This record gives sequence, C-alpha cells and structure tokens, in this order.
Amino acid sequence: MTRDDGPDVEGLQRRLADFAAARGWEPYHTPKNLAVALSVEAAELVEIFQWLTPEESARVMEEPEGAHRVRDEVADVLAYLLQFCEVLGIDALQALSEKIDRNEIRFPPK
Amino acid sequence: MTRDDGPDVEGLQRRLADFAAARGWEPYHTPKNLAVALSVEAAELVEIFQWLTPEESARVMEEPEGAHRVRDEVADVLAYLLQFCEVLGIDALQALSEKIDRNEIRFPPK
Amino acid sequence: MTRDDGPDVEGLQRRLADFAAARGWEPYHTPKNLAVALSVEAAELVEIFQWLTPEESARVMEEPEGAHRVRDEVADVLAYLLQFCEVLGIDALQALSEKIDRNEIRFPPK
Amino acid sequence: MTRDDGPDVEGLQRRLADFAAARGWEPYHTPKNLAVALSVEAAELVEIFQWLTPEESARVMEEPEGAHRVRDEVADVLAYLLQFCEVLGIDALQALSEKIDRNEIRFPPK
Repeated sequence: MTRDDGPDVEGLQRRLADFAAARGWEPYHTPKNLAVALSVEAAELVEIFQWLTPEESARVMEEPEGAHRVRDEVADVLAYLLQFCEVLGIDALQALSEKIDRNEIRFPPK
Repeated sequence: MTRDDGPDVEGLQRRLADFAAARGWEPYHTPKNLAVALSVEAAELVEIFQWLTPEESARVMEEPEGAHRVRDEVADVLAYLLQFCEVLGIDALQALSEKIDRNEIRFPPK
Repeated sequence: MTRDDGPDVEGLQRRLADFAAARGWEPYHTPKNLAVALSVEAAELVEIFQWLTPEESARVMEEPEGAHRVRDEVADVLAYLLQFCEVLGIDALQALSEKIDRNEIRFPPK
Repeated sequence: MTRDDGPDVEGLQRRLADFAAARGWEPYHTPKNLAVALSVEAAELVEIFQWLTPEESARVMEEPEGAHRVRDEVADVLAYLLQFCEVLGIDALQALSEKIDRNEIRFPPK
C-alpha cells in the first residue's frame, strides 16, 4: 500500500538533507549529535505531559495551543530520527517492520 | 513519490496497534506513557554513542553487532513515535512537512 | 568530613519540600512524575552541549551566559533528584557511596 | 547543619575522580559526554516507572528488587551529576540553593 496524498519518508529525508546542506549544518550532524538531538526533542515532547494525569494526557489535543505544541515536537523528533537514519544509511521503516516480526515471536499474544 | 517496495507508515501503525491490542497493552498506552517510552528508547540509542568520539560515531555501522543494535533502537524509537501519533490522531509525516515549511522561512539559507 | 560553610543535602531537601508544600504542588510530585521531570531537566542540560565539539564543551563555563545556564540546569536536575529521593525515602549520598563500593569490585583498576 | 554520619558530596566527588583516574577514563569525561551519560541514567530511572500508574509508582520501594533498582539508578544519576560538576568546577549544592532563592521570588506561594 502506498500513500498517494501526502509527504513520504524519502521525500522528507531529502528535504531535511537539502535544508541542512543549504545552511552548512552538515559538520554538526554526526550520528552522535543527531541521536543526542533526538533525545532532547523527545524530552521536549515529554515535558508537555510531565505533570498531567493519564486522563489529562489523553485530552491534550483538545485545545489548539496544546495540539500545535505536540505536533511541533513530533515533527522535531521525526526530523532528527530521519536525519540520523540518513547519515547512517538506515531504512527506519524496514528496521521497524523487522522488529515487529521479531516481537511477534518474542511476545506471543495471550 | 511513493515507496512501492517496502513497509509504509500507515501499515506499520496498523501492525503496532494490532500487536498492542492482541496483548491487552492498550490501557498502558496513554499519550503520556508513550511519550515517556519514546524518550527512554531515544536514550538507549544515545547510550550506544555516549563515550564515542564524533569520528568513532560515524563508523558505528561498520561492525555487525553495533549496526544491529543501532537499527534495533531506531525501530523502538519509531515504534513509540508511531503509537503516540496513532493514539492522538497525529499524521507525523504531515506534521514534519509543515515544520520544514515553517523552518524554511525561519532560518533562511546562507 | 563535613561542609561547614555551605548548603547541605538535607537542608536543601527540606527547603524543596517546604517550597512544594507552600504551593500545593505535592499531588503532582509522584515518584513517576519526579523521575520524568528529572529526565527532562537532564535533557535541558544536554541541549546546551548538543552541537558542541568535545573541546568546545570543555570551555562552556568561560562566558557568563553559558555558565549561568549550565549552573541553572544543574540546579534543576539536583532539585528533582532530591525531591524524588525525598518522596521515596532514599538517601542519595548513601546510595552512591554503596554503588562506588560495588563498582570498585566490579571494575578493578588497570 | 552538617551530616556527621554519612558520606558527603565532596568526599563522593573525590572518590569518583579517583575511580575514573585509576581506570584511565578521564579522556572520556568531557562535560558533553558526562551530561549525555547523566541523561541516559535519568532515562534508566524513568524506565522503571514507564508503565506504572501514579499509584503504583508510589509503592515502588515496597519490594526489595524494585527498591534496589531505584537506588542503583539514583546512584548512577548522582554519580554523573557530581562528575559533571567536578570537571566544570560547579558547586551543585550552592547552585541549587541559589536557584531556590530565585524561585521563591519567581513563584510566590499561594
């Protein structure tokens, strides 16, 4: 199945690579720095939820400001994940597909 | 452009949702818990690199064990990111595309 | 050996507990939330260093703004660590002392 | 007030510095690497709590294995925080004391 109607991972990776190249940011984009930046962005996503109850956390998209902030941090996490994969030649979707295959054996359903 | 030859985001999100449902894990998958789990997996990816020099970090895929470990953590990060987006109804690719649009205005190329 | 001339851990823990109580923040200070807040503050400390080379990172205290920011994040990390330990009745200094004892056996010096 | 009956921060910092020196680990202990290691250990602490409800998280010290794991991660977090402060010449207790002073002004009690 394919998505015909929206951005795809490869296109986003190319846009991110062009974006970094046009700004001379490539020397900073070592795998180590990109992994660290990914973890920093993940923490910024967590920060939105840190004092919320589980129930409150489920309603975070209900008001526009919270929804925007969550989407913005999701974008940042995905951006660094894709850039990390780009510099190391990793196909993230394929890696996840194989991981699910392994987990289906490792954790049999109840 | 579309990927005809590999897993896609929507298909992976469906597999992850089915996987969690078959194991009764849904009650644990609050947005807060999934964001936290994402940050924990991001830290596990960082851990691989924590004592490496920038140069060493660029060679992490050269030996099979390191490469496997990196791909495995990438898969875990992506898994929680997609599950987080699934429970909150966020299109991660679209969110990133819009973020790149905004960043192209915010950070003009040199 | 004792510090006669500065704040001590017990006094800081008491100030932090009083501070939280006076603001009605105690219900938010579950061990889970405090651990998460600790990790968020640790990420904010990391953020200062994320694009620096190892050499640049060693000079981070040389300019006042950077030095203030680092000290501020160190304070936040320690604040949540001490509050976490307070709510769970953990003596952090004792826990570390015992861990060093164990590590001296586990990792013999070269 | 002083602690006469247990380890103190300065003594622990000295033990940690001696421990690292005896193993030739100093070159790895850049401020950047130590901040990153701190964040990785904070994530390992969070991992213990990631699927727990707030109520379950309050009972984590009740069984010995959980209690040991929590104390162990607390020790790791504190170890990297103190080593980070050591290499940058930061007095963590003083930094926190000053931060509480500032917060008492910034967040007046209700």
